[in-house]
Amino acid sequence: MRSHYCGDLLEIPAGESVKIAGWVHRRRDLGGLIFLQIRDRSGIIQVVIEPDQAELFAQAEDLRSEFVVCVDGVVRLRPESMINKDMETGTIEVLASGLTVLNKSETPAILIDGHEDVSEELRLKYRYLDLRRPEMQQRLLFRNKVAKKLRDFLEAENFTDIETPILTKATPEGARDYLVPSRTNKGSFFALPQSPQLFKQLLMMSGFDRYYQIVRCFRDEDLRADRQPEFTQLDIETSFMDEEAIMGLMENMIRQVFKDCLDVELGEFPRMPYAEAMQRYGSDKPDLRVAIELVDVADLLKQVEFKVFANPANDPKGRVAVICVPGGAELSRKQIDQYGEYAGRYGAKGLAWIKINETGKGSEGVQSPIAKFLNDDIINQLIERTNANAGDILLFGADSYKVVTDAMGALRLKVASDRNLIEDAWKPLWVVDFPMFEEENGQLHALHHPFTAPQENDADKLRAAPTETLSRAYDMVLNGCEVGGGSVRIHDQNIQSAVFDLLGIEKQEAEEKFGFLLEALKYGCPPHGGIAFGLDRLVMLMVGAESIRDVIAFPKTTTASCPLTSAPSPVSEAQLAELAIKSLAKSKGEDVE
Amino acid sequence: MRSHYCGDLLEIPAGESVKIAGWVHRRRDLGGLIFLQIRDRSGIIQVVIEPDQAELFAQAEDLRSEFVVCVDGVVRLRPESMINKDMETGTIEVLASGLTVLNKSETPAILIDGHEDVSEELRLKYRYLDLRRPEMQQRLLFRNKVAKKLRDFLEAENFTDIETPILTKATPEGARDYLVPSRTNKGSFFALPQSPQLFKQLLMMSGFDRYYQIVRCFRDEDLRADRQPEFTQLDIETSFMDEEAIMGLMENMIRQVFKDCLDVELGEFPRMPYAEAMQRYGSDKPDLRVAIELVDVADLLKQVEFKVFANPANDPKGRVAVICVPGGAELSRKQIDQYGEYAGRYGAKGLAWIKINETGKGSEGVQSPIAKFLNDDIINQLIERTNANAGDILLFGADSYKVVTDAMGALRLKVASDRNLIEDAWKPLWVVDFPMFEEENGQLHALHHPFTAPQENDADKLRAAPTETLSRAYDMVLNGCEVGGGSVRIHDQNIQSAVFDLLGIEKQEAEEKFGFLLEALKYGCPPHGGIAFGLDRLVMLMVGAESIRDVIAFPKTTTASCPLTSAPSPVSEAQLAELAIKSLAKSKGEDVE
Repeated sequence: MRSHYCGDLLEIPAGESVKIAGWVHRRRDLGGLIFLQIRDRSGIIQVVIEPDQAELFAQAEDLRSEFVVCVDGVVRLRPESMINKDMETGTIEVLASGLTVLNKSETPAILIDGHEDVSEELRLKYRYLDLRRPEMQQRLLFRNKVAKKLRDFLEAENFTDIETPILTKATPEGARDYLVPSRTNKGSFFALPQSPQLFKQLLMMSGFDRYYQIVRCFRDEDLRADRQPEFTQLDIETSFMDEEAIMGLMENMIRQVFKDCLDVELGEFPRMPYAEAMQRYGSDKPDLRVAIELVDVADLLKQVEFKVFANPANDPKGRVAVICVPGGAELSRKQIDQYGEYAGRYGAKGLAWIKINETGKGSEGVQSPIAKFLNDDIINQLIERTNANAGDILLFGADSYKVVTDAMGALRLKVASDRNLIEDAWKPLWVVDFPMFEEENGQLHALHHPFTAPQENDADKLRAAPTETLSRAYDMVLNGCEVGGGSVRIHDQNIQSAVFDLLGIEKQEAEEKFGFLLEALKYGCPPHGGIAFGLDRLVMLMVGAESIRDVIAFPKTTTASCPLTSAPSPVSEAQLAELAIKSLAKSKGEDVE
Repeated sequence: MRSHYCGDLLEIPAGESVKIAGWVHRRRDLGGLIFLQIRDRSGIIQVVIEPDQAELFAQAEDLRSEFVVCVDGVVRLRPESMINKDMETGTIEVLASGLTVLNKSETPAILIDGHEDVSEELRLKYRYLDLRRPEMQQRLLFRNKVAKKLRDFLEAENFTDIETPILTKATPEGARDYLVPSRTNKGSFFALPQSPQLFKQLLMMSGFDRYYQIVRCFRDEDLRADRQPEFTQLDIETSFMDEEAIMGLMENMIRQVFKDCLDVELGEFPRMPYAEAMQRYGSDKPDLRVAIELVDVADLLKQVEFKVFANPANDPKGRVAVICVPGGAELSRKQIDQYGEYAGRYGAKGLAWIKINETGKGSEGVQSPIAKFLNDDIINQLIERTNANAGDILLFGADSYKVVTDAMGALRLKVASDRNLIEDAWKPLWVVDFPMFEEENGQLHALHHPFTAPQENDADKLRAAPTETLSRAYDMVLNGCEVGGGSVRIHDQNIQSAVFDLLGIEKQEAEEKFGFLLEALKYGCPPHGGIAFGLDRLVMLMVGAESIRDVIAFPKTTTASCPLTSAPSPVSEAQLAELAIKSLAKSKGEDVE
């Protein structure tokens, strides 16, 4: 029904006959002529209908936005005065000789050709209209390109795409599983995978050597922030490679994709130990586009009268850190209070500050409610250590290590965002040397997952000093987002048992949940490791979208529902009976909590 | 940990040092030497350890099957007498200079290097061992290659890979849905998709023009035959193309994949109307490798005394058909009886037969219990019409059209299989011109699905004569398997409403289930159509496997469970309470029916 796509007509010599098919993007009647903009996936072309073609002209007069048409015509150059520089095909047009209406359209609920703000609910309900917008078209085509380039790279490196089950057993990622009642094993349930972690490890034990998969994963979490119940992961696992080799290869892959898709050279990725990231940036995913760093100053403040500073400065579990905001002396009292409230969300009980008017002048050069507690020498040293200049402000965090680190790490980003202190650049890095475990109320938790290998390869030594043991995990961070995370895995059953023990996973529980993995470790498991990338988030970053919903064709709302299809929806009693389950919801769709 | 894969060492000049890593496939101690076969994904290589390397030799003496090792050594040519022609790398070996044991192995439950019959249950329980077998490795690598070639073809043809939801609404494919209880909308359920049918149509309405996806689909069916609860579909949809264009393109794709992966030229695919397929082959997916056809003979038998023939021959809804089995005169009475029983499964009440001793001699030339009811002229005509020769047998079906067609279609394949009458060839074809509807007890059913466009484009005419209307559906059949099926879809809301009405889908039900589709049809839906291929089945056919389970890494058993992970499994009461559901199974895992 077409000879060419609209966007490809620039390549056609003027005078040639073409046939195009697409949607009426706009219709204008001007100077006795009818001008149509016809849109397809590739772009938009102008079609002109002249009044001497009476029948055609009458037909065209009935056309409205979003009618689907097929147009025969001849490509011609526009006269100089009619060239539209805002349109890719703005130098040409098609003079119509024939027109077929393939389908009509009612007035669409969302204007395709408009930039007005439409609620996200409406965009999702009429997603098929929203997706017609050239911006959304481009995003999904770009996503396809990224996925293809990732595949090309991995296939060239001998990785094999292998599919793993969606109907499976609860996985150990820690979030809530989506469950699927089994009809043939009543009372039992499948879980949808939070990741194919165990299966990809089993594939290494099966000898596949290099595995990848672009795979759907599921987490039944409350969807604060930018999360989706189902999301897509580029999942990778290799055998006989250590972390250096894996990081090197993965870095090459991401570099290649940025080069191919964005023409951006990412350069070499720096490596940063977890401890350093927390110290300097207050985050395990530091955004290196922001130059501001957390500067530790506890040593300067141990003796001051001000207890808010002195107490944490003298507490081995405390921290006193400061960030210097360039030009921040202009902040109003109200703005500073707002930042104090912001830091409060992370547990900070206040936000001390010093505005710098002049450097090297002690309390005379600064303005601050706490200056009276500090002598000139301390003030000068604070200024020197933070490299502060006149016109800057110092913001202080003083509390437990965790509160200060979290609060000042978050505040650093907030202030940078508010004051345009984020460099327009791509800043990737690897965060490495994570602790194996976090301790909370005497209970150890895995910082990654319980299959992550420790740097300590002796099970007894691991048991003796678990919290001092670092893991062989690595996270790829880009502009403050974790885009990928992985590790070398445990391939020794003694180490695996030690980790389960340390995590307080009892023998029986370990047997029930991971028995098959422990069993598999006995039969010649190769050294292996891998990584998983969040494809939605990676693509979102690359296209500069605000939300992963803008790079997913049919996303769910923040209440995990789909306004387009009305999923989830009530089902018949007969269906539930067949599955031997009963709904306890008082009425259909009602929340019983 | 390696410089080369084992299978790539043939390309290495003798004398070069290499490092390999893999599994001990075999160890033999012979003539004071130790011979190891080391296996990795790429193949197997022989490693020789000489006794003068005392430490190395001692290490090697501890090696057992499936130990994971890393070997340093030098490639050398084997002496002429030691060349192993059964091994791909049989002309070379590696003389070891170093050995590292990376992991040990207990005696595996399944021998990797053995061809003994292992139960499928055991193969699935120790799938990671089963998958180490070179045959299974090759099958999954081949599957990856097929998928890649399909993607390459489609990307080159401007198709875009777009992901559709897995957590979605019940789809209309007719099989039972897997349900997922929603926690945030209690009392409501997601369904796992039986196919992305509606989403791919919505993508066409969104203007994506050419979509594809290699996508998991789910059907909660009883797993008789070779089915899986989750299976993989190559899903395709296009806009502005008619059935001829779609079939042409898809045929090119499959041809290309067979050429690239098997070096097989499939040639042009013949087209066969559904009615002809049923008439000549008794099947809507005729296996053209079998030359035997159903031959209609009712016209010859209307006047015979034998009511078993005469009644259906005179009944407009009856059928009398015969298949001629070459060389079948040698069948024993017992064998014929067994075929009678086989036909009985399809409703046939008996199996009349005529063995041909000589042709053209009427009853004198044949042996048959029914010869007495037939005169010489009829017998001669039967022989002539079926092209029977001396030594053949004619097998008769006489009953309703459906029973005869089904039974003789099935018997045709059964006999051909038993008697090696299946040509060793690839025989693809398109089956077209399906009826829109089947009638059963006065109720119409869609032969494909309710979005399939009729060849009749006028809603009133369609309503007037639904059972006479053919659809714009097409099935790709290969060697008697339906490998793909699709259609041009309805893009006109009046036609769609007429089809829903004819199917007895009430307004409210249509609104609830497909309201969003009917709504979407109002806003400029382009003409569109598509197809879906069963990837598991296609790959199974291509590799010559017996079951789709042999081309799926982690398949389920016929009771829809996974012996490896023990999924599905019981879950905690707390998890169910959170989902506001209750299990009615009397005990965990028990079947309450």
